[in-house]
This record gives sequence, structure tokens and C-alpha cells, in this order.
Amino acid sequence: MTNRQITLKKRPVGMPTPDDFEMATSPVPVPQDGQVLRRTLYLSLDPYMRGRMSDARSYAPPVSLSAVMVGHTVSEVVESRHPAFQPGDLVAGYDGWQEYACSAGQDIRKIDPSLPPTTAIGVLGMPGLTAYVGLVDIGQPKPGETVVVSAASGAVGSIVGQLAKIRDCRAVGIAGSTEKCRYAIDGLGFDACVNYKTDDLVAALRAACPAGIDVYFENVGGAVLAAALRLINRGARIPLCGMISEYNATNPPPGPNLRPILANRATVRGFIVSDHADRMGAFLQECAPLVRDGRLRYREDIVDGLEAAPRALIGLFEGRNFGKLIVRVSPEPGHRP
Amino acid sequence: MTNRQITLKKRPVGMPTPDDFEMATSPVPVPQDGQVLRRTLYLSLDPYMRGRMSDARSYAPPVSLSAVMVGHTVSEVVESRHPAFQPGDLVAGYDGWQEYACSAGQDIRKIDPSLPPTTAIGVLGMPGLTAYVGLVDIGQPKPGETVVVSAASGAVGSIVGQLAKIRDCRAVGIAGSTEKCRYAIDGLGFDACVNYKTDDLVAALRAACPAGIDVYFENVGGAVLAAALRLINRGARIPLCGMISEYNATNPPPGPNLRPILANRATVRGFIVSDHADRMGAFLQECAPLVRDGRLRYREDIVDGLEAAPRALIGLFEGRNFGKLIVRVSPEPGHRP
Repeated sequence: MTNRQITLKKRPVGMPTPDDFEMATSPVPVPQDGQVLRRTLYLSLDPYMRGRMSDARSYAPPVSLSAVMVGHTVSEVVESRHPAFQPGDLVAGYDGWQEYACSAGQDIRKIDPSLPPTTAIGVLGMPGLTAYVGLVDIGQPKPGETVVVSAASGAVGSIVGQLAKIRDCRAVGIAGSTEKCRYAIDGLGFDACVNYKTDDLVAALRAACPAGIDVYFENVGGAVLAAALRLINRGARIPLCGMISEYNATNPPPGPNLRPILANRATVRGFIVSDHADRMGAFLQECAPLVRDGRLRYREDIVDGLEAAPRALIGLFEGRNFGKLIVRVSPEPGHRP
Repeated sequence: MTNRQITLKKRPVGMPTPDDFEMATSPVPVPQDGQVLRRTLYLSLDPYMRGRMSDARSYAPPVSLSAVMVGHTVSEVVESRHPAFQPGDLVAGYDGWQEYACSAGQDIRKIDPSLPPTTAIGVLGMPGLTAYVGLVDIGQPKPGETVVVSAASGAVGSIVGQLAKIRDCRAVGIAGSTEKCRYAIDGLGFDACVNYKTDDLVAALRAACPAGIDVYFENVGGAVLAAALRLINRGARIPLCGMISEYNATNPPPGPNLRPILANRATVRGFIVSDHADRMGAFLQECAPLVRDGRLRYREDIVDGLEAAPRALIGLFEGRNFGKLIVRVSPEPGHRP
């Protein structure tokens, strides 16, 4: 039995291309005592992966050349020599871009079988925790304040806006198409959403935020960040979560002028979700019930087959996905032909 | 008796010129019941004054055209109809660019006559409190950490470095001449100081900060800020106090790329010292004894005569001053001819 894997063939210069990846095969591992073999059902594709493809200094080491690309996964246990796991169990892990993985079991956790399995890598996984930590812990929104989030229809942004609404804030999104803006308002309950591609961004944002911006949750960087800074209020908080618009730049572009940060006594704080794993319990306690009863909504953009992953990741940087981008690597147990 | 005053004649475009100011005269006010008339001895010149000359939106309202320029002052009480003040008392206030001022007494405070009066507008005044709040409250330096401060020989920077040393940090300055760097090291006890005009700034800063930067106290903005960001450590704190290099720009220049803030989970926080008046007590309690016994050193650049103020302020933006810039408006009582 073979394990198909996608490895990093070469480090991209600028935007990744399909040639930067390579499909490899290896034998499916045989679990040793204490180990768990699982089959990947779903692979999460996320912006941070661009950083792992590069050897520039960052917060995590790069993927080595010829190594399997990293990524969060939902899997089904195939064979277990670990007492805590049984064949058929659904688990979340960080198994990467491959069909099978095998390890000692500390790096997987069983997921709630009463919820759709993809939620474990989406709304109730890393992206959801990112939204929660960035908004709640760093943004510290107060009722009545205005919260603006970029990439508003995406995996993180969509949750930021909904959690802001739940905290009685005005939630304003920024997204890259009329359709995405429509979805943020009608599908997710945002108060307003600005299309950065067609609107005069500063004017549109000003109209959407008549009382200014108290929390700006940043996912994209570049011109969108510069526009938002022009509208921040005194004491504004700016959780810096991502800068996807810049991840493929071959040289770091200049940033926004920081005078508004000074004049408004604002705080910009960068954060990386993996530092905040201790908040997973509080996050799930609040958000799992909201997902179960439909009050916290999510949208997934699922592509089929491991071989589709490279082009789908490239599309993420072009804004082509609409919702949390996920690769269906193997069919779910109940849906096997 | 006439009161000479310098008023704002027109709003500067870019760097101020002497023509933006005008010398005016008015009668010396006669104190009414409860009021205090005082003669200005010293006027503090500070970078924030450029903001007050402009009508761009900022944290404080602009000086009106034809109004007296604002500024912190040390004065001698000439006539008092207020029970708390007697002729001869030395007081600190915000009387602006003029020889006499008169008001009800809430806006002046008596200063410690055992210390040089200029310290009340320098090392123990607003610049000192700025250094204290920015370093201690926002920078939160821990023993062994590296603290970098720009404009290191200036009113604020010189105190930041010395307070960092007192907290057992490595103190590294950035300044604009060999002489200023020499003074920071030999005169103030900094561990190192980099001349941003002649050194390869990133390389020199890297050499001066072998363990990276934990606290970067920002006074200047521009290229210096961009260089410092390249060397920050995980969890770095960046008190944003001033951006003097940009105050005369007619359009806001771009800022630094913020990827290092994200990757290092750093915090940038803008602050305005007037928000932190409640810290004056703690600041003086620590720092007044240090000034008295010579452990907290300061350097003043005193120019003579109110009429010298406009050119001296312009020189501040050109880095021509060396130490806290102060105008001697009238001779001290003990030094009268």
C-alpha cells in the first residue's frame, strides 16, 4: 500500500507555482507498539504555509526541501497500537500533505463525532482559535465599539466578525468581492462590508465606521492596513494576525506611516496562535455550542484530492477561495463508494 | 511695562522658517484677585511643538494663528494675589513663548528650590516623565534585556538609557553625531551608541545588540525605526513616543514593514505623556534623588533670549541641539545685573 505525499521541491520566489511542489510516494508506515496509523480525510490550507516554504527567518522553522509539506489534518484511525485510539476514531493532527501518517499518539486528539469533522480544522480549529485569541484577548472589544476585520469572509475573519457581534460591537468587514461582502452581511450578520478592490477604501471605510475604528483585526497588510489606520480611534487595539497580501513579495514592501498609532495612543500587537494553545479550552467552551446550534456560521471551500492542494494554496494568495480552504484527501468513512 | 510674546504668524509647510513666527508686544497683565503674575525664566523647546503649529488632526488642538506659541516654562512669581504663592517663588507652568503670564494659579506648581530650576522642564519635567512612562510602564524592561533608544543624547533619550542601566539592562543609543554617541557612552553610561548618519545602521546596531532588541524606545521614526525592527526579539515592546524625523514631511512617508512585529509577537504602543500625569509622583520619587546625587545626569543646550526661540526650534528638527533645548527668557533672580 502506498502513501502519496506532496513534498517541497524548491523554495518559491514570489508567488508559489505548482512546480515548487512534487508528488512523492512512500510505503504506508506500519505502526509499532504505542503508535497510531491514520488516513487523512481533510487537509487545511492556510496562509502561514507560505512562510514555511521560505527559509527566511520566521517564527517557525521552514519545511526542508524534499520534506512533506506541513498542515493541519482530520484523519480516521486505521490501525492503533495505542490504548486511547481505536480504528474508526476521528482525530485532528498536524500530519501534513499526505494520505497516511503514523506516530505515537501525542500529536493527535480525538474530535467530537457529533460535529462535522471539518470543523476541527476550521471554525473550531486553528482558524477559530486565532479569531478568538486575536479578538477577545488582544482586541478586547467593549460593547458598542466598532470592530473592523480584513479578509472578512475567510476562515479567521468570518469568525472575528461574528464574535464581535456576539459582544455587541459594530462589525465591519473588508473583503475582495461584492459576493464576499454580501455573504459577510447577509450570511454572517456583519453590519457592513467594504470591497477593497472596487471601493475608494478610505471613503467607504469611513462611511461604514461613522464612529471610527476601535479594534482593527489585521489579516492582510498593505494598502488595507494603511487605510484602516487613518480611521482608528484613541486607544485603538490592532491585533496583527496576518499580512497575506505581502507573503509573496520578494522584498518587504514599506508599511503604513505610524503617526496614527502615536497620535491615537493605539496598540499594535503581533500574535501567533500556537503561543495560545492554553486558550483552546475557553474557546471551545464558548464556540462549540454556538456552532452546534447554528449561531456561529462558517463556510468551507473544499477541493478534491491531494493533488489539488498546490493550485488551491496558490489560489488562496490570489483570493480565489471563498470560505475556509480545505482539501478532501480521502472520502469520509460514511461516504465510501 | 510690555510683555514680549512670540506668536504663530502662519502655518509652516514642511520645515518651519523664522517667518512663521512673529514678535508681538502686549501690556504686562495686572493680576486680579486670586491670580499670580510671573516672569518667564526658561522656556522649553520640544519636538511636539511642530504638531501644534499645524492644523492637521492630532491629539491636541493647534495653536491659533496670531496666538502665543505654547510651551513649558519655569518662572519667578512677580506679584501674587493668591495665598499659595509669594513673590520670588519659582514655579513651573505652561505659559508659552512670552516674558510674562498671569492666571489663577491652578496651572502652575512650585518647584523644589534646592534643584536647578531648569530641571523642572527637563530631566524632572515633561521630558523626564516621558522617558519614565515610556520605558517603565510601556517598555517594561527586565534585567539583562537590551533597551535601544533613538535620539539618545536628547532630553528624553538620555534619561531612557540611564533608567535602563539602573534596571540592569544593556542600554544602546542611536544618535546623529560621533560627539553625541561619545557623550551617551562616556557621559551617560550607555553600553554602546550608533551614529545613524555614518554607520551602516543595521550592521552597527546588530553589533551593538548581540542579543537582539527587547525594548525599542522610538523618538525619531523613518529609517531608524525600520532598522531597529529588523533586530527585535520575540515579545519585544516598542513604546512609540515620537517620530521627529517625519514631523516636517508634507506628506506622511511610508512606514516600516510590520512583518517583524507579527513574526516576533511584538507590541507597538503609542503614548502621549499628558495622559500619564498620574505617574508624576512615582517618577519624581525615583528620579529627583538620582538627579540630586548625580546618578541621573542631564545636559542642557541653553540659548539666550526669547527672540532666539524660532531658530532654536528649527535647529531641533535639524538635530543641531545637543542636550535638552531651553531658551533663557529672563536671567535668574540671583544672576541679575
